[in-house]
Amino acid sequence: MELTVYLAGQIHDDWREDVKRLAKEKDLPLHFVGPQTVHDRSDNVGEAILGEQPSGYFKDDAASAINNLRTEVLMKKSDVVIALFGEKYKQWNTAMDASAAVTLGKPLIIVRPEELIHPLKELSNKANVTVETIEQALDVLAYIYE
Amino acid sequence: MELTVYLAGQIHDDWREDVKRLAKEKDLPLHFVGPQTVHDRSDNVGEAILGEQPSGYFKDDAASAINNLRTEVLMKKSDVVIALFGEKYKQWNTAMDASAAVTLGKPLIIVRPEELIHPLKELSNKANVTVETIEQALDVLAYIYE
Amino acid sequence: MELTVYLAGQIHDDWREDVKRLAKEKDLPLHFVGPQTVHDRSDNVGEAILGEQPSGYFKDDAASAINNLRTEVLMKKSDVVIALFGEKYKQWNTAMDASAAVTLGKPLIIVRPEELIHPLKELSNKANVTVETIEQALDVLAYIYE
Amino acid sequence: MELTVYLAGQIHDDWREDVKRLAKEKDLPLHFVGPQTVHDRSDNVGEAILGEQPSGYFKDDAASAINNLRTEVLMKKSDVVIALFGEKYKQWNTAMDASAAVTLGKPLIIVRPEELIHPLKELSNKANVTVETIEQALDVLAYIYE
Amino acid sequence: MELTVYLAGQIHDDWREDVKRLAKEKDLPLHFVGPQTVHDRSDNVGEAILGEQPSGYFKDDAASAINNLRTEVLMKKSDVVIALFGEKYKQWNTAMDASAAVTLGKPLIIVRPEELIHPLKELSNKANVTVETIEQALDVLAYIYE
Amino acid sequence: MELTVYLAGQIHDDWREDVKRLAKEKDLPLHFVGPQTVHDRSDNVGEAILGEQPSGYFKDDAASAINNLRTEVLMKKSDVVIALFGEKYKQWNTAMDASAAVTLGKPLIIVRPEELIHPLKELSNKANVTVETIEQALDVLAYIYE
Amino acid sequence: MELTVYLAGQIHDDWREDVKRLAKEKDLPLHFVGPQTVHDRSDNVGEAILGEQPSGYFKDDAASAINNLRTEVLMKKSDVVIALFGEKYKQWNTAMDASAAVTLGKPLIIVRPEELIHPLKELSNKANVTVETIEQALDVLAYIYE
Amino acid sequence: MELTVYLAGQIHDDWREDVKRLAKEKDLPLHFVGPQTVHDRSDNVGEAILGEQPSGYFKDDAASAINNLRTEVLMKKSDVVIALFGEKYKQWNTAMDASAAVTLGKPLIIVRPEELIHPLKELSNKANVTVETIEQALDVLAYIYE
Repeated sequence: MELTVYLAGQIHDDWREDVKRLAKEKDLPLHFVGPQTVHDRSDNVGEAILGEQPSGYFKDDAASAINNLRTEVLMKKSDVVIALFGEKYKQWNTAMDASAAVTLGKPLIIVRPEELIHPLKELSNKANVTVETIEQALDVLAYIYE
Repeated sequence: MELTVYLAGQIHDDWREDVKRLAKEKDLPLHFVGPQTVHDRSDNVGEAILGEQPSGYFKDDAASAINNLRTEVLMKKSDVVIALFGEKYKQWNTAMDASAAVTLGKPLIIVRPEELIHPLKELSNKANVTVETIEQALDVLAYIYE
Repeated sequence: MELTVYLAGQIHDDWREDVKRLAKEKDLPLHFVGPQTVHDRSDNVGEAILGEQPSGYFKDDAASAINNLRTEVLMKKSDVVIALFGEKYKQWNTAMDASAAVTLGKPLIIVRPEELIHPLKELSNKANVTVETIEQALDVLAYIYE
Repeated sequence: MELTVYLAGQIHDDWREDVKRLAKEKDLPLHFVGPQTVHDRSDNVGEAILGEQPSGYFKDDAASAINNLRTEVLMKKSDVVIALFGEKYKQWNTAMDASAAVTLGKPLIIVRPEELIHPLKELSNKANVTVETIEQALDVLAYIYE
Repeated sequence: MELTVYLAGQIHDDWREDVKRLAKEKDLPLHFVGPQTVHDRSDNVGEAILGEQPSGYFKDDAASAINNLRTEVLMKKSDVVIALFGEKYKQWNTAMDASAAVTLGKPLIIVRPEELIHPLKELSNKANVTVETIEQALDVLAYIYE
Repeated sequence: MELTVYLAGQIHDDWREDVKRLAKEKDLPLHFVGPQTVHDRSDNVGEAILGEQPSGYFKDDAASAINNLRTEVLMKKSDVVIALFGEKYKQWNTAMDASAAVTLGKPLIIVRPEELIHPLKELSNKANVTVETIEQALDVLAYIYE
Repeated sequence: MELTVYLAGQIHDDWREDVKRLAKEKDLPLHFVGPQTVHDRSDNVGEAILGEQPSGYFKDDAASAINNLRTEVLMKKSDVVIALFGEKYKQWNTAMDASAAVTLGKPLIIVRPEELIHPLKELSNKANVTVETIEQALDVLAYIYE
Repeated sequence: MELTVYLAGQIHDDWREDVKRLAKEKDLPLHFVGPQTVHDRSDNVGEAILGEQPSGYFKDDAASAINNLRTEVLMKKSDVVIALFGEKYKQWNTAMDASAAVTLGKPLIIVRPEELIHPLKELSNKANVTVETIEQALDVLAYIYE
């Protein structure tokens, strides 16, 4: 039974590649989807498609509309969501995606460092499982196939 | 027609009192609910009710469970949600509540300063209306009654 | 048993007053809600609350966000929706509200002149009842209380 | 990951063929569905299957019932909806389909010329993304696969 | 706690008056709603409001549209549905209302004579409780208040 | 695009075979499912699996539980429902299945002879399309593929 | 803001009276509902209303149908559910009610002694909050009003 | 048509192997999923993935979070749920899974020995079918394919 996993979270490093590599090593039949991970492309996609916008605000709004459409299409196709929070960024859209997953009934695994326990406590309490490393998240997914 | 409004967002200042005062000045039949706003009480409620927990992590988890129950009960009673983001805090639970509101079909107004346009762009795009001041949020609510 | 009725449709004449007068004459316990009916206010509300926008497009987008929030709040409070189409205007937002009503499971009565039978045929087929006059729409509502 | 796209909108020209050609050129794994595009067949299908009807009104009602069944079956199979509005026609059924898509949680892309900004403003505000050309709509879909 | 009870079923005798009398005798805080019970009015309401129709088929369709709107509005307001089947009539609309109640999550009590056990077995199996007399149906409702 | 069609209705003749034959002749990619059509097996399945029951009433209840489970599993897999009513039988379970289909959002085609127009008028009004022959029902399904 | 609280759980002692007394002492605007607490009445209600049944199995089935209808009506009216598990009984219907509450989106508080931590661990993990005493459950409810 | 069946219930013996063997003998196209059946692994999975926990309570909570995630993912993929209750254990999580299945609209078959009729009566009344042996449960599934 193949499962589709949406990888929400920061796009400033390549943690998604680590996830995919681990899944391959464990030979798990997982199919991964997620947001646009080229940061510039993600920020500029609104103007790239719709043309120049009157200001930064409208440039952001145009980009986010297209990013949200992508997320909505792909998350609805998913069976599980992993949301990763790092220490550096505010990542409110990660919190938004994680909360949407819970409200839509998609099982949610949060990955976050120990330092973020306190600010993420309410979201963590809503998630099915909260872990600290990508390896642990994959262990949870692997458990489904045992 | 009375409407119930859930006030999500930071609990570090008394912006909710400003909202209530403005609603009163405008003579709007609004009933406001929201999270526990005494910060210490919010952080400690888990241990206060369930007793001492083994560590900070479990103290946080206990508190957040009770905070989330409160939010869930009150948000389900609400007709509209206002979520306020300030510049200082990460406020991932505000993003969580705002996203849950959208997914549950509760109309959402976001209040955020200009500085947060970029990091909040995806959430802002999902909201019904995004404004910069509490006065504007109340103007939107007042418009429902015109 | 009081019912709340959302009156979707054109805001270029005062048909809603006729509806209310007829309901009063028939002594029906109906409570009516609907969109902003002062046309200028409806078109300008975005800039009035959010400030000047960069162009007509963004002025329209700001206004429609606030108009949609109003509609969403009030339609969710409603038990029945009446959507009136006149001959002059395109009124795509009326079609939008009528279709949203059907999809949300709100019973829908369409009022439209004979001339619009053909272009409205698919929407009319989705409505519970389609009539040609406001009097007939009120007759349908009165029937609920017989 | 193949996606199914419902193409709502006018059936008076062959814009759907342009969409399909562009998708092929971009090598996107998209599967397109939509309404009956032979206009006469769409208008006459009620009488063709159910026999002669007593008047134009009933001929229209019979046709729209069968057109609506087709739309309902195919839209439920879809992952995304594109709704195109042209300048000439009232196309209330396009607005109906677009609004149904939003209410059913199907991501929606609207294509409309600049001239229609004002009358479509509320519907456009509800859509995920609004563009002016078919090329832009395909760019948005292509972005999902980047 | 007052409950609203929809009384689906035949309109050829005055069983609804018996239900109301029994509820009064037992002093139960129940509010009853139901279909139009004047048989001629129910059959003719389509033409009475919409004008003469081309044939019996269209007269029936017009009446049923208005009867269904009434049922939809009132059943959505209800907490419990009682559906009574008698020996004489086919009453497919009673079966339709009972099934809609179950699918909408409205608790359902069926009242039917012993003779109808076999033809009603699938519907009876879907109901919460099936009884043979109006007195028993009221006993079930009274039990909620014990 | 293959569609699954649930064939609700009487099991006293072999109309389902006619449906399948016509679909094959038209070369439509339809997959048909439906209730148990061997009448004795349908009536006796409760005792066959669960053992002898205390009376006819409990024998019927046991059979209907298993018949309803079958219907529920298969209808949820379906994209469209065809419900056929004949002149001879009460077929309340057909009305139940048809109404469940509508409430679950499954498009519904009713097939019924002219004689049943009046008693089926409310259910017919709720269906997407009502026809008189199996050929017409297949024409409607074929139209989806044009 | 008054809240309705469903009190699921054992009916072998009078813990519900303790809950009500504590709520009164704390002056909380809570309205409590729950199952039939007279054990014999709960076990015998099926035969009391429907008449003698063929065996213990059918007596139990008749009683449970009426008990489930009561629970369904009252739980749908509730804003929060408290489920209490004691050490003595299997109380599978309490687990059933608690799980139904979670799945229906009703916030859930479980009360259970320390001895039951292990067998209740999955259900406890699904609840919003798990406590050991009635006093703690009331503290959680009181927190909503702070 | 392949169906996926979730096998809820005790993990203390190998009844699931009997189910699979019987399905194979009957040549039924069924795909079975279920919980972790290695008891120690199920109890220890929390600490195995998340590391040592402060006490038995937190060890149990960590394990149940991961077990519940597995159940949630797999039950959502299922078309039917079989829940088996044995005489020895409390198995509240089985009751929880069975109740979640019913509330989610998944058809449910309960298998339980005669001795458990009374304590399981409310849950049994909510199930589609209740049987006493695994063979009977498979007979019910086989009936879907007749």
